Amino acid sequence: MKVLLIGAGAVGAYFGGRLAQAGAEVSVVVRSGFDRIVQEGYRIDSVDGDFRFRPFRVFHSAAEYPETPDWVIVATKVLPEVDLPGMLRPVLASKDTAVLLIQNGIGIEDPLCAAFPDHEIYSAVAYIGVTRIEPWHLNHQGVHRLVFGRCDGQPPSPKAAVLAQAWNSVGVEARAVADIRYFRWKKLLWNTPFNPVSVIGGGLNTRELTDGGEIEVLCADVMAEVAAVAAAEGVALEPELLEETMAYTRSFPPYQTSMQVDFEAGRPMEVEPIVGNVLRRARARGVDTPKLQAIYALLGALNRRNLRG
Amino acid sequence: MKVLLIGAGAVGAYFGGRLAQAGAEVSVVVRSGFDRIVQEGYRIDSVDGDFRFRPFRVFHSAAEYPETPDWVIVATKVLPEVDLPGMLRPVLASKDTAVLLIQNGIGIEDPLCAAFPDHEIYSAVAYIGVTRIEPWHLNHQGVHRLVFGRCDGQPPSPKAAVLAQAWNSVGVEARAVADIRYFRWKKLLWNTPFNPVSVIGGGLNTRELTDGGEIEVLCADVMAEVAAVAAAEGVALEPELLEETMAYTRSFPPYQTSMQVDFEAGRPMEVEPIVGNVLRRARARGVDTPKLQAIYALLGALNRRNLRG
Repeated sequence: MKVLLIGAGAVGAYFGGRLAQAGAEVSVVVRSGFDRIVQEGYRIDSVDGDFRFRPFRVFHSAAEYPETPDWVIVATKVLPEVDLPGMLRPVLASKDTAVLLIQNGIGIEDPLCAAFPDHEIYSAVAYIGVTRIEPWHLNHQGVHRLVFGRCDGQPPSPKAAVLAQAWNSVGVEARAVADIRYFRWKKLLWNTPFNPVSVIGGGLNTRELTDGGEIEVLCADVMAEVAAVAAAEGVALEPELLEETMAYTRSFPPYQTSMQVDFEAGRPMEVEPIVGNVLRRARARGVDTPKLQAIYALLGALNRRNLRG
Repeated sequence: MKVLLIGAGAVGAYFGGRLAQAGAEVSVVVRSGFDRIVQEGYRIDSVDGDFRFRPFRVFHSAAEYPETPDWVIVATKVLPEVDLPGMLRPVLASKDTAVLLIQNGIGIEDPLCAAFPDHEIYSAVAYIGVTRIEPWHLNHQGVHRLVFGRCDGQPPSPKAAVLAQAWNSVGVEARAVADIRYFRWKKLLWNTPFNPVSVIGGGLNTRELTDGGEIEVLCADVMAEVAAVAAAEGVALEPELLEETMAYTRSFPPYQTSMQVDFEAGRPMEVEPIVGNVLRRARARGVDTPKLQAIYALLGALNRRNLRG
């Protein structure tokens, strides 16, 4: 199985490395740490046993890949300035190449599905605790689970089953499902309230986000608005998921959200996939989402200010 | 007329200085710049002509004032840690002493009215452009208008008319009115959206607050919520005031809000009088105010973080 991995940050490199362990020929497109990755590959410290990931080949851009891959796996951040269809066009000449997007948010598949209607395009929701120490050095603290499904709502093909099986063979819980939308919205129940409120509230950790006071009320209300938008989109999230998500968040040791980490580092935040696209769907469906509007407005202002320096 | 002025920051010292110009015996209680103010008084650079304000006497606390004042004027910030009834008790031994509060927000008179039900207590809304360069040095850029009225809703007494007249005699537009609540709520139409959103959005100036985009939508929605709470409290603000307030804000050159200036300086913000008390009244009256809740939660978190350093 030939795989081209684009965006080999922590999440991408981890799951790509596991595929290589399973025997796949995994090449990578990287932005930083190129020479070191060519020479030594990735060092992955993992609770499940440390390992090295030596990519088959390392590229600066997808266009350099000389063959027809079975899979293109994209694990970049979702930012307005990234033209994903343009970036992938050179490696999607054959319809036999399938795509898997391991990215957060809602609506992230739309541009790609519109540009490549005849390709199998999947999106994945990842559950993993992994951080990047250096571009070539990751720390995997726990959990490694992927759920993926076709963007067009068709059932997963045998090719998807083979990919899931490759991960399963090395201990990663990967599962191809018929309705990925359920899992994407379910993950937004966490991402849409907690990531933005952590940033807008001045760097609140998970303990402060579930303070039993006005901040928790705000997070709970945003979560309820996300569930209402999902329902209007035909995705029924079980009502008990809201309190379960809050209780789960209360239960962890205090930690910084990934959006807060990006904000503090002066990096762009995933405002549109996590908040903007949810708000646009709410407006299109006539769902009243005042808290989402407030959060979108404020997060957008902070993101613009941050990127101006 | 004997006046004791407490909280001689920019607004207090300006209006106190004008009363002294009008012939009142104005003593002050100050926190900073004590020695300099004793020796040289205040220097006030004003668009209406520079002047000096030499207080009659200068005190560290209200309890030191040896006489029975005609008026106690309070122009401190409204912060939870300030016990105003306790601070004023020593100078309110006589019911002949009236009180004027020149402070922002809603509900600021309540503790004082409850503690001193037999005194005449007024609250004022100030319209003035004045900044403090040093504790003893102010810069008055334009406008100097005061509207004040009794907290218990009774018409202004002759004593209040005398006070207004003193200011009028030196060119300050001061007016005692029967229904001060209207003016207090009207001023909140500006303060409640723009001050907090400027801070939460990362230091937005008035131009950025009226950007024609999502931030302006947020401000307009908060403004509409304030008007709805006012209506539920029996204060009818004309519907056109909302767009007028927005248009007026769009029209000025970009400037930082006073709350943003406090936040950047690490000083406490007036979260409760400007936002918290409005939200509590909304809840008591059953008015739905989701944007106010969001802003209150986020501003409170930023204020706590700021004060922790």
